[in-house]
Amino acid sequence: MDAASVAWILTATALVLLMFPGLAMLYGGMLSGRSVINMMMMVMSSLAVTTVVYVIVGHGLVMGQSIGDAGLLGAPGEFSFFSDLTKDDGEGTTINGAFFILFAAISVALVSSGAAGRMKFDAWMGFAAIWVLVVYGPIAHWVFNPDGWMRADLGLHDYAGGTAVHMNAGAAGLALAVFLGRRNQSKREKPHNLPLMLIGVGMIAMGWLGFNGGTAGAADFLAQYVVLTTILALAGGMLGFIIMQRIFEGAYTLMGLGTGAIAGMVGITPVADTVNPTVAIVVGLCGAAGAFGAIKLAQKFGVDDSADVFAVHGVAGMVGAMLVVFLGDPDTPGEHAGIFFGGSWDMLWREPVAIIVTVGYSFCATYVIAWLMNKVHPIRITATDEGVGIDAALHEEQAYDRGDIDDNEQDSDRADREITGAADRGIH
Amino acid sequence: MDAASVAWILTATALVLLMFPGLAMLYGGMLSGRSVINMMMMVMSSLAVTTVVYVIVGHGLVMGQSIGDAGLLGAPGEFSFFSDLTKDDGEGTTINGAFFILFAAISVALVSSGAAGRMKFDAWMGFAAIWVLVVYGPIAHWVFNPDGWMRADLGLHDYAGGTAVHMNAGAAGLALAVFLGRRNQSKREKPHNLPLMLIGVGMIAMGWLGFNGGTAGAADFLAQYVVLTTILALAGGMLGFIIMQRIFEGAYTLMGLGTGAIAGMVGITPVADTVNPTVAIVVGLCGAAGAFGAIKLAQKFGVDDSADVFAVHGVAGMVGAMLVVFLGDPDTPGEHAGIFFGGSWDMLWREPVAIIVTVGYSFCATYVIAWLMNKVHPIRITATDEGVGIDAALHEEQAYDRGDIDDNEQDSDRADREITGAADRGIH
Amino acid sequence: MDAASVAWILTATALVLLMFPGLAMLYGGMLSGRSVINMMMMVMSSLAVTTVVYVIVGHGLVMGQSIGDAGLLGAPGEFSFFSDLTKDDGEGTTINGAFFILFAAISVALVSSGAAGRMKFDAWMGFAAIWVLVVYGPIAHWVFNPDGWMRADLGLHDYAGGTAVHMNAGAAGLALAVFLGRRNQSKREKPHNLPLMLIGVGMIAMGWLGFNGGTAGAADFLAQYVVLTTILALAGGMLGFIIMQRIFEGAYTLMGLGTGAIAGMVGITPVADTVNPTVAIVVGLCGAAGAFGAIKLAQKFGVDDSADVFAVHGVAGMVGAMLVVFLGDPDTPGEHAGIFFGGSWDMLWREPVAIIVTVGYSFCATYVIAWLMNKVHPIRITATDEGVGIDAALHEEQAYDRGDIDDNEQDSDRADREITGAADRGIH
Repeated sequence: MDAASVAWILTATALVLLMFPGLAMLYGGMLSGRSVINMMMMVMSSLAVTTVVYVIVGHGLVMGQSIGDAGLLGAPGEFSFFSDLTKDDGEGTTINGAFFILFAAISVALVSSGAAGRMKFDAWMGFAAIWVLVVYGPIAHWVFNPDGWMRADLGLHDYAGGTAVHMNAGAAGLALAVFLGRRNQSKREKPHNLPLMLIGVGMIAMGWLGFNGGTAGAADFLAQYVVLTTILALAGGMLGFIIMQRIFEGAYTLMGLGTGAIAGMVGITPVADTVNPTVAIVVGLCGAAGAFGAIKLAQKFGVDDSADVFAVHGVAGMVGAMLVVFLGDPDTPGEHAGIFFGGSWDMLWREPVAIIVTVGYSFCATYVIAWLMNKVHPIRITATDEGVGIDAALHEEQAYDRGDIDDNEQDSDRADREITGAADRGIH
Repeated sequence: MDAASVAWILTATALVLLMFPGLAMLYGGMLSGRSVINMMMMVMSSLAVTTVVYVIVGHGLVMGQSIGDAGLLGAPGEFSFFSDLTKDDGEGTTINGAFFILFAAISVALVSSGAAGRMKFDAWMGFAAIWVLVVYGPIAHWVFNPDGWMRADLGLHDYAGGTAVHMNAGAAGLALAVFLGRRNQSKREKPHNLPLMLIGVGMIAMGWLGFNGGTAGAADFLAQYVVLTTILALAGGMLGFIIMQRIFEGAYTLMGLGTGAIAGMVGITPVADTVNPTVAIVVGLCGAAGAFGAIKLAQKFGVDDSADVFAVHGVAGMVGAMLVVFLGDPDTPGEHAGIFFGGSWDMLWREPVAIIVTVGYSFCATYVIAWLMNKVHPIRITATDEGVGIDAALHEEQAYDRGDIDDNEQDSDRADREITGAADRGIH
Repeated sequence: MDAASVAWILTATALVLLMFPGLAMLYGGMLSGRSVINMMMMVMSSLAVTTVVYVIVGHGLVMGQSIGDAGLLGAPGEFSFFSDLTKDDGEGTTINGAFFILFAAISVALVSSGAAGRMKFDAWMGFAAIWVLVVYGPIAHWVFNPDGWMRADLGLHDYAGGTAVHMNAGAAGLALAVFLGRRNQSKREKPHNLPLMLIGVGMIAMGWLGFNGGTAGAADFLAQYVVLTTILALAGGMLGFIIMQRIFEGAYTLMGLGTGAIAGMVGITPVADTVNPTVAIVVGLCGAAGAFGAIKLAQKFGVDDSADVFAVHGVAGMVGAMLVVFLGDPDTPGEHAGIFFGGSWDMLWREPVAIIVTVGYSFCATYVIAWLMNKVHPIRITATDEGVGIDAALHEEQAYDRGDIDDNEQDSDRADREITGAADRGIH
């Protein structure tokens, strides 16, 4: 790996790191003020737990030599404890190791949103560790490892992890949300802090340029191209979502703009290298429109996926992955010809197979992990704790302490009331 | 373009992308809590709308071959749909395309602050699309295109868009603010969230290193130098503003520090390559002092430019651009000699001509666009909607939902009051 | 310096710049709502004041030729006004100058937390300027300059400023906190905004990859390696702190997770180049555990170091620096063999000597500066101002204005009360 590419992958790693506080703000801002601490801790602990697990054994599962050349799982011992990464092999294996840690950890962090406000924190940390090994490890091997069956045998086109990261996390988040059941509350929670949500979107968008751009593995034309298409899809996604809002709901919202931004970038992730600029905008538009539809559907079915991880990461990812089947442009760095550009029709079953297997495996395995853990010890918090609010009950902490801020107002309020009270008591 | 420069321009693009959430936080934090959603949506939709327009036809207007070699406007068809950017031409045209999108979009986002709290959102999106083509396109051609008349014929020294981005946006924001008229409120709005404002300033400052550093076009000494001078002017700007506050107002404020930071960086943008380090600090100091004076003046004239875009981007930009006339240092990468460093006196009219034409064209064209749009359909929200608050009225959304957060406090408050009330009713 | 390394150091500089708003959010979020403005202004003004002082004379003190070859202090005139940095010397001196400014300024910003809520702002700015010259300058010379006595004579292993930045700032912050005395309040302040705190941690973590990665000075294997170990220690730090919380306090908190993240990165800073990946996690764990213990101890002793700068930066830094004595791995880029890896026993006194001298000099010199300044004019705000709140008293500004946001709620509240009041008055 040449020095320029090292410079870029170092940068991309730093950019992707910003996605963690970004996700914490996005999901935290979308919840009510009673579950913010817990949500943010789930996101950040995803990074902590995944890193340790991934360094010990995870990287081998993903990038290690395929066991029995089956393309199903890598040799777990291969990068164990990252002990070989202390020496320069000239191929950037060390910085790539760091980059891959963050890919795994981001997937876990996305899943956490499915458990918003109702999972014990100990249980979450255990779940995260198991999930990295049992769900992320295999799927990432299928997709990212040159010998993985989806890449080597099925011929899946997935540029930067539309399947392994986004659809996987979307399906797993949904499984967790379904298993845990709805929160005990009468109505859908309102986001408590939309500027916080947008801070998250902003950090995530910047990070995504590192996520997609760094996947190029070099400071080359491919990196240039995917950074461009990611920005185009981000723009398309914002427009796609608010256009749907305008048509079906009458009013544009910031929540919609933010959701569309994420959905647009999810949509482009599997195809960023192989759609032309115009199609990149279309992918963003369609990814966001798909997410919009899926959110409406989830609300109808009463699934409590409060951060819409399945709609935004699952559905938008599928939309992107399916669009490449038709709209892949051979005249791009990815050189993948879609059906409309003279490509072969067999992608019409190859791509869906990859999607169905990914989503199916992820959903089922996640559900089973949650079910087994729950057998050992209940993973959902008690109704009492939920009544108090998970932040106060589990973490003995509130997101905001407004004591001092409100002092002046409260003082005058109190004074007001005291006067009234005194008057009441005094005069009568 | 060598790989190292690709690495740097990729990075610079990511950095500049962070300026959008940054501006959303800066402007959102500066407004009252009733207009936050709308303000943030105007900023983020600037990115969405500009990107689409710019890809379709905008880049040609700016960087295309000058029509009739007049230096007035580029050929709109030249980069149409970015269809030629799918192949590597070895010159970084693709990543530069992404970088240029963001330059255009940042300018639009700056303008949006002039409409804070009182423009219909549909109208804003239409305005943004038209403004990119009619105002930004030509001015950017004059300044950024090697054949543009300001660069080729007038010999303007403008390193990274002091005219095309900052003075332009400042004048346009002012025109929009003047056209829309003052908000219906008794007094100047107080910023509702200053930490949010500072988050914005922080994101913008980081992004600015990409903005100025990326303009170098390579990972070279020029990039090193402008990153240094930008940091120096940032520091100078913070000091300059609070010194003015200390002298004229007695108290330093965080709002002042943040405003000074931005003004300092605006000031250095046209001259970052050609002032020595000491002068870079002075440019920051003077840019911020100029912005301070202009804010005071705007308040006196009762212009409702709530985010002070003209003062901060217009005036500070002019200050920077004029300082180079006197203080440009031939012993810097820009090699531009100011009058005090033995330079030619003719910059004394060249630079002001560029400023006056930019500001004049931008102000008038923007005013005409707003006026014409308003003829078709009123662009200002109704007084009723303004009374309700633009967020609630147009977007059916509030920035903060404090229902749950306040539950405990409110419960105790309510209990308190109920007791009082009960006592009142019970006893009497 | 090759172009790829220029690209990386440019990037690293931008990343480190984000640490300033990061620190402002971290410390601001940790305080009550009455001291937010002041805290954020102290952090940001650290950047402003340090930059100016450092450019004029500071860089020479640090990186200039050692006066009398004593390794105690550099020649102040050497880089005066950065006037030689306008020409490319091919070694990246210009961008390194910018990078070094930020190192100095970060140290000052860390110190500011020791003065939280109780120092006059004029006094702070004066203190900052003096402290850079008298405390940071010498210590940074000892550690960062190839001829500094700690590096050249003592053989201290300090990769990226564990001593000069973190232990130094930790000790100085403690000295300032001790000198100023406790705040006039009955109980330990509660953080007013934990999401803000986490935004800070996120920005700082991203910046730290630039801080440690940029210290490599090139886009090379060393940079790759330290970015990896920094991420590992970040993960270890988060886990270390919440494990301690789980054992000793029963509940995990977001404040703990954030504190652990910072402490983990502090711990790795002196040793990022020379511990293997497993040990990097251990360094994070132990650094955070050390910080946890020190925070408990500080609470017991009643020291009012509200942001725990000594515990987090002083103690965690010492833990990291001492771990290298035992756990340094010769099979890493740093090639430093710890005692457990066959290394020499004499680091057992060399490293502690460096720590003790750094902490001792920093604490004493800082205390003396504060004492002398206080002789001239009291540096602590008056009890009256403290009662009102430092933001309102000194800056005539509040972090949040919730007038408009609360309007609806307040209106209904007020209506409520008015009815009650009216009823009271009316009926009786």
